[in-house]
Amino acid sequence: MIPTITAFERSPDRGRGLARDMRVRWALEEVGQPYEVRLLSFGDMKEPAHRRLNPFGQIPTYEEGDLALFESGAIILHIAERHPGLLPDEPNARARAITWMFAALNTVEPPVFERSLTFILDRDKSWYADRMAVLDERVHARLGELSHHLGSADWLDGAFSAADLLMVTVLRRLGSSGMVEKFPNLSDYVARAEARPAYQRAFGAQLEVFNSTSSAG
Amino acid sequence: MIPTITAFERSPDRGRGLARDMRVRWALEEVGQPYEVRLLSFGDMKEPAHRRLNPFGQIPTYEEGDLALFESGAIILHIAERHPGLLPDEPNARARAITWMFAALNTVEPPVFERSLTFILDRDKSWYADRMAVLDERVHARLGELSHHLGSADWLDGAFSAADLLMVTVLRRLGSSGMVEKFPNLSDYVARAEARPAYQRAFGAQLEVFNSTSSAG
Repeated sequence: MIPTITAFERSPDRGRGLARDMRVRWALEEVGQPYEVRLLSFGDMKEPAHRRLNPFGQIPTYEEGDLALFESGAIILHIAERHPGLLPDEPNARARAITWMFAALNTVEPPVFERSLTFILDRDKSWYADRMAVLDERVHARLGELSHHLGSADWLDGAFSAADLLMVTVLRRLGSSGMVEKFPNLSDYVARAEARPAYQRAFGAQLEVFNSTSSAG
Repeated sequence: MIPTITAFERSPDRGRGLARDMRVRWALEEVGQPYEVRLLSFGDMKEPAHRRLNPFGQIPTYEEGDLALFESGAIILHIAERHPGLLPDEPNARARAITWMFAALNTVEPPVFERSLTFILDRDKSWYADRMAVLDERVHARLGELSHHLGSADWLDGAFSAADLLMVTVLRRLGSSGMVEKFPNLSDYVARAEARPAYQRAFGAQLEVFNSTSSAG
């Protein structure tokens, strides 16, 4: 059965693939599962029809027959449990990969996301510089810990897994801040992931949405 | 095999059970799995010995023979996969419960955690009131969406699951702010969870740590 995911009709990142549908597209490409996409405006996301799929009115969602899921982490775990290629088979290695999925979303993403939010919403505030310095320090500390763990390894724990997929999408949100580049092993890690054919296909697919909806506008 | 978890030697919440070891204790009590606890000072958490278990230097960790995990969400999923009682058996219901686990940790917790951090760290700042108003609005919006979803149900999706366990621990972080109480169905939801015998045992165990280490100090 071909699943359907939702994505922004007009992504605020202008095609840079920073929205959370990118994660799900990438996971589906890694396992070779075709999918369909339903595009939503910001208005559509807050309508009852979409809130029945995701009570918090966000993208992405994932529909497959009777099943409707939300939360990119849960969707990716669901895909990883049903297809080979995103989680190791050996039970302890699998549990460790899932630990790193949660680490990407709960330990690394929150300060990164908070920083993006401040960058977008609070630039005109008197306390912007002050606040940004605190957030930069929080993000920098997390990246330092991550860099130390990664060392000279290619991936977080053995072979590429759903944990790397999530961690790389989190690191990519730091975009042109230069914060990732302070840790050369982390920039290499992101580049290594971006070079994967599945990443390239997913990135191309979301860019095509941006190009077609922005030229039509 | 009896697992060992780590917890704060002196929890900054003064025995209110807001630290993340509470989640793991509660999950282990729900499934009837005895466990041991290793207490750590704030210094211990940043030492190489602990960072080998959790590169981000946080509690809780979970050790079971050769396996070492961190991230409360991952630990609870691990427990739920190995014991009955925390996730439904039916595959779609199970996937939905996991979605709500991620929703608790990735959609509801980040603004709640950010609010706590501001409350603790920024009270003396000139922009504190301004910033707190923004954070309160973000938290209030999420709680409204959650309250709307819950409606008159007892639990998030059918029977009590690991998702309720995580969501309730997130809501409890709002403590005496009065924010949860604006949604009576959410206060009832928290009270319903706190009345569970497994919750009571876990709460008692962490309180005992606080009482014994604070009287000894």
